[in-house]
Amino acid sequence: MAIRLHQSDADFEARFAALLAAKREVSEDVDSTVRTILADVRARGDQAVIDYTARFDRLPLTPETLAVGEAEFAAAELAVEDKTRAALTLARDRIRAHHERQKPQDDRYTDALGVELGSRWTAIEAVGLYVPGGTASYPSSVLMNAVPAKVAGVDRVVMVVPTPDGVVNPLVLVAAKLAGVDELYRIGGAQAIGALAYGTATIPPVYKIVGPGNAYVAAAKRQVFGTVGIDMMAGPSEVLILADGANDPDWLAADLLAQAEHDTAAQAMIMTDDAALADAVEAAVERQLKTLPRGETAAASWRDFGAVIVVDDLEAALPLANRIAPEHLEIAVADPEPLLAGVRNAGAIFIGRSTPEVIGDYVGGSNHVLPTARSARFSSGLSVLDFMKRTSILRTGPEQLRALGPAAITLAEAEGLGAHARSVAIRLNL
Amino acid sequence: MAIRLHQSDADFEARFAALLAAKREVSEDVDSTVRTILADVRARGDQAVIDYTARFDRLPLTPETLAVGEAEFAAAELAVEDKTRAALTLARDRIRAHHERQKPQDDRYTDALGVELGSRWTAIEAVGLYVPGGTASYPSSVLMNAVPAKVAGVDRVVMVVPTPDGVVNPLVLVAAKLAGVDELYRIGGAQAIGALAYGTATIPPVYKIVGPGNAYVAAAKRQVFGTVGIDMMAGPSEVLILADGANDPDWLAADLLAQAEHDTAAQAMIMTDDAALADAVEAAVERQLKTLPRGETAAASWRDFGAVIVVDDLEAALPLANRIAPEHLEIAVADPEPLLAGVRNAGAIFIGRSTPEVIGDYVGGSNHVLPTARSARFSSGLSVLDFMKRTSILRTGPEQLRALGPAAITLAEAEGLGAHARSVAIRLNL
Repeated sequence: MAIRLHQSDADFEARFAALLAAKREVSEDVDSTVRTILADVRARGDQAVIDYTARFDRLPLTPETLAVGEAEFAAAELAVEDKTRAALTLARDRIRAHHERQKPQDDRYTDALGVELGSRWTAIEAVGLYVPGGTASYPSSVLMNAVPAKVAGVDRVVMVVPTPDGVVNPLVLVAAKLAGVDELYRIGGAQAIGALAYGTATIPPVYKIVGPGNAYVAAAKRQVFGTVGIDMMAGPSEVLILADGANDPDWLAADLLAQAEHDTAAQAMIMTDDAALADAVEAAVERQLKTLPRGETAAASWRDFGAVIVVDDLEAALPLANRIAPEHLEIAVADPEPLLAGVRNAGAIFIGRSTPEVIGDYVGGSNHVLPTARSARFSSGLSVLDFMKRTSILRTGPEQLRALGPAAITLAEAEGLGAHARSVAIRLNL
Repeated sequence: MAIRLHQSDADFEARFAALLAAKREVSEDVDSTVRTILADVRARGDQAVIDYTARFDRLPLTPETLAVGEAEFAAAELAVEDKTRAALTLARDRIRAHHERQKPQDDRYTDALGVELGSRWTAIEAVGLYVPGGTASYPSSVLMNAVPAKVAGVDRVVMVVPTPDGVVNPLVLVAAKLAGVDELYRIGGAQAIGALAYGTATIPPVYKIVGPGNAYVAAAKRQVFGTVGIDMMAGPSEVLILADGANDPDWLAADLLAQAEHDTAAQAMIMTDDAALADAVEAAVERQLKTLPRGETAAASWRDFGAVIVVDDLEAALPLANRIAPEHLEIAVADPEPLLAGVRNAGAIFIGRSTPEVIGDYVGGSNHVLPTARSARFSSGLSVLDFMKRTSILRTGPEQLRALGPAAITLAEAEGLGAHARSVAIRLNL
């Protein structure tokens, strides 16, 4: 049973604040272990990566077998059903089409003084993509990370995925091919992050690393940040549904459970102005849990982190929703636009009763790599911009330098930077 | 004396690689000290911040005197010369005008299937700006950080600046006012980062923290990353000048020294196809060093990290420049556009002989917070986008769900996510 809150209750604010503050993940302190692994990979390169892979993944490798080869890609193609391949291709095409629209425009202009200013976008040359192994190894995530990188124009998209005991997920290989991944290495953990960041004899370094991973991978990314760029820290998934009373409780229950089944630390929440709907959804969740393949995981998530919040009216739910800043927000009402206008903090919003969040996970076209754990207050889902960088361009001719130079000299002198002042003054014969 | 490399020398590649790999900063291991301070601020709030400020800044404070008050702002206004205030105002206005152009466009559209997709940008509600104390307390940096935040639409721009022994830099206060900073607290170090990230009774928390600081500040930002967003890690400044033989060596020497005077770890480099110019610039640097107020700092930087690189021709310099990925790149040639087109990695580019980098530090309008230490390979200078986040919007009606739903179900089943499949199937009566 999820917790139930009523906005009209006297202790609502305290209980809502506690819900916001609840930690859903145990943060293991793996920093020193990771530091040792990274230093070892930096020092010993391929051999360190091979040693750790033998130890952690029980997989003997050589420099020659670090990379997944063409024969394995071909075998993976044969192992994947046509229907699945077609669905992955549809997803790839829709993700590509949507992300093409995110490509930024360069801007170059001359202002009233005659100063030329500009911003120019270029793709990062080489990017690493971490894909977890085992049950969290999702082909859809390969597409969501690699397709925007390729749309951005990244030359080398380098994927790593651990294959414990040598077990390869053919769907992941097929997705990598469809997405245009350039190199794929069968390594994982902190040792893979080290190989990507520092490079080895076999694996040239990349400049940025994206993708989710376990505590070791997250700690390794945090430690190599600066040497390379990294994306946001991914936490367990969450959904918040804003629903009026006219919804089918079974549809909403299915959406809640689609989040809950990800992870016992996932969080599924619903806010409604209709207490009867709240009851019906809770009953439907219990009913559906009984026939769910991942029912145990979903039940634990719903029990520990699920929330049913009855609000005075849905407009009054907006400030609460913005404090939650959910990764996924469904607005399941007849006319969602007014509520949509009031949302400030959310990773992605799914509007109307016929837009289950799951469409966005796979084939909507938008990205499913989204900010979790309230980080939608300050960060965005993955986009083409994450694979590009902007260079500014400035040009002053002699006339513009005469106009602006004296102010620059004044500020340089105020900051005690004599050589700064001189580099302008010398050009103005001052 | 800076090092001298010739592209035609047999050992060039090895020496250039060594130049790239040189570490200019000693990274102090302050992680455990910082961890203690952050935990203490989180637990004890204001009182912890006050205790650390008394200890590190020798400044006794109360919750009431944490914030800088209106009387102090008024006193600062009186302490700053009109000419300086006018220069700051010009800088503010030019920075604002340029950054207004960076505001992203929302995108909402319907694709051929009838699926509605969108991206909506909103400002981060509250942002913290760290400003170092002492000699590195630059009013220009206050403008460069706070103006883009205000252009983005940030509601609360919260600045912290340590004032050791109670010494306040009036220029910093005036710049804060001009930039529209909403709150200003006289605290610094890891304790200030903790106060911004976790909030205290007096200082409400922010959602993102930007701005440079010492090793303690950098470590604290890395540790609170996730709880809040952070900007890039700022390292010592650097410039690379690409110059043909027709330059005035004294102008170029002045530009090199403007970087070198920042910090003994700063790096000033020049690449030219004219060995005689290289000699003349080196001589001019030595000459100018003698009359520079911060000559000792600049001389140490030039001696330890300066580089003069003679290349076969300037086109051949481009791959080298892209490997360096300089924070600042000057292209001092008659026709800079062809070289400009070949630059992929640089924080900011200053083109033509009359665009000293210093103009960009103050009054050009572009931002002077730029990626250092080769991070221009994967990151950008500060912009309005750093103070906003993007929410994606998706809507499928029943017809679009019928078109896309089966592929989503196929992928959900392939990934073993039964509740995902059900949340689509239930709406299609499958």
